[in-house]
Amino acid sequence: MTTSSDRLVPLAEIEAAAGRIRGTVVRTPLIPDPDLSEAVGGEIRLKCESLQKAGAFKARGACNFMSRLTPEELARGVITYSSGNHAQAVAFAAGLKGVRAVVVMPTTAPRVKSDGARRLGARVEFAGTTSEHRRVRAEEIAAAEGLVMVPPFDHPWIIAGAGTVALEVFEDWPEVDTLLVPIGGGGQMAGCAAALRRLRPAASVIGVEPTGAPTMRRALDAGEPSTLPGIDTIADGLAPTRAGDLTYAHAAAFLDDVVLVEDDDIRRAAAHLLTRRKLVVEYSGAATIAALTSGRVDARGRNVCAVISGGNLDTSLLGDILAAAPDQAA
Amino acid sequence: MTTSSDRLVPLAEIEAAAGRIRGTVVRTPLIPDPDLSEAVGGEIRLKCESLQKAGAFKARGACNFMSRLTPEELARGVITYSSGNHAQAVAFAAGLKGVRAVVVMPTTAPRVKSDGARRLGARVEFAGTTSEHRRVRAEEIAAAEGLVMVPPFDHPWIIAGAGTVALEVFEDWPEVDTLLVPIGGGGQMAGCAAALRRLRPAASVIGVEPTGAPTMRRALDAGEPSTLPGIDTIADGLAPTRAGDLTYAHAAAFLDDVVLVEDDDIRRAAAHLLTRRKLVVEYSGAATIAALTSGRVDARGRNVCAVISGGNLDTSLLGDILAAAPDQAA
Repeated sequence: MTTSSDRLVPLAEIEAAAGRIRGTVVRTPLIPDPDLSEAVGGEIRLKCESLQKAGAFKARGACNFMSRLTPEELARGVITYSSGNHAQAVAFAAGLKGVRAVVVMPTTAPRVKSDGARRLGARVEFAGTTSEHRRVRAEEIAAAEGLVMVPPFDHPWIIAGAGTVALEVFEDWPEVDTLLVPIGGGGQMAGCAAALRRLRPAASVIGVEPTGAPTMRRALDAGEPSTLPGIDTIADGLAPTRAGDLTYAHAAAFLDDVVLVEDDDIRRAAAHLLTRRKLVVEYSGAATIAALTSGRVDARGRNVCAVISGGNLDTSLLGDILAAAPDQAA
Repeated sequence: MTTSSDRLVPLAEIEAAAGRIRGTVVRTPLIPDPDLSEAVGGEIRLKCESLQKAGAFKARGACNFMSRLTPEELARGVITYSSGNHAQAVAFAAGLKGVRAVVVMPTTAPRVKSDGARRLGARVEFAGTTSEHRRVRAEEIAAAEGLVMVPPFDHPWIIAGAGTVALEVFEDWPEVDTLLVPIGGGGQMAGCAAALRRLRPAASVIGVEPTGAPTMRRALDAGEPSTLPGIDTIADGLAPTRAGDLTYAHAAAFLDDVVLVEDDDIRRAAAHLLTRRKLVVEYSGAATIAALTSGRVDARGRNVCAVISGGNLDTSLLGDILAAAPDQAA
């Protein structure tokens, strides 16, 4: 019998992933946020995956996954389904290996993400609006064309790749005592929690979800994942309708809490990052900052790393974000 | 007799400055630019001083200068004159020491910079539109109120602080063979050239100025600095009307070239950084990228670090920048 702790990704797997993807992905910077630190009474630093290859942390998992495939599998080509960032990451990782890639995205995907995937060499197909719609379509295409599926989050190779984010945070800042990670499907949360809770057991790891997409919060409350009837949030990267089984197991084992943030707080957090920190961040990437500025997480006296998961913002939204800035001139 | 080589800031001074300001300023990231690398046929990395405290490299010189003052001098308070970034840097550095600061800015200063200086605790005075106007006013106030002048660029402590940028670049990327640095008054160029040409004598250091503000280009052509009758560029940080005597001596001793870039190229470069690299950069900070994308600097086969000097962009300009993006959806 497999117990749930048998399924947790070991630290050694995450360290091995770091070795495999070194030089292929960016070792992203950890940037202090002095204004926010002063405002919340703790030391806040930002792990900027918005500056990652293909604009999000997803490149880490995709590159690790691709490096585990056999030559025969690589020759068949790969396929994935994604709201956008994982699609671009798979396109990027496949391009490096000279492997063909198909990505299935929702009809509502931000154009910055579909264009990005095409620019990176993938064939883009569109299917429906939910994660279930696109998963079904991707499985059909995979069967018809003999492609290898690269799951968006619920796979140990994807989780191990994403966990390299936390290895770098700990290396740069061994005193970190709180890690805030956004949760979409939960891959980044799972990997980061699996890494940090082994490296520094006393550290808190807190997941952040939009109030309109509380998949992991509901799964933890119910004791198992379930499919939500609907999702309503501006954070398109945090909107799968169901947590993964494997990512749920990591949440149950490692997380201190999952907090929920309002879209308005996310918009204001994106405005802070744009105007004060000079970073273009997508709404999903600003959720951890929203957890701090809205007071959902108490940072007083803590050393808090907030993971900024991605930067693939449709630039047509910049006006909306600036309108949310507390001081537009700043 | 003092020869001009006697006046060049020694590497040891820059290394000492690095020790003094460590922990006070951000060790900014060096970020690869894969799209631009592919486009120009070289390896391009960005030294992101836009992510520096107070939004620009200027914090380095200001903190180094402040750390050299005596307790008596600190007690008197400080004053400076600046188009904006040095003003904010002095406000920041003075705030850390609990010292009062007055900054004199042009009436045309971007509001992001004057508001920034105020937020950092400085008293802001406005005077005229040129660097000469504000220098004269700052000297009057300094005399009347007994304040210590912190020069914006033409001082060895300021140059040594700015040179720490190049120390970090070389530490992160010993194979760098070309450094592109924007030139306003020339402090950052002088410090970076003084550092890199000693650490790696074979490396090229190239200055970048707007065609509408070619102060150092003219000084090198004429064999001495002169005051330009007028300045016309969107890059407000690169617009002093006269190069410094000391910064000129560094340019003459160390630079391989000074190239000129058009405002339109600067605008397009800022659009590239915003849409592809997810970085908010002010026009002055995008000038080095403009030198690459316009073909003014041939990067084929080279390892090029482009210094992105600052990020203090008035957000009202974001629309103009997006309009210059080659592909607005990207």
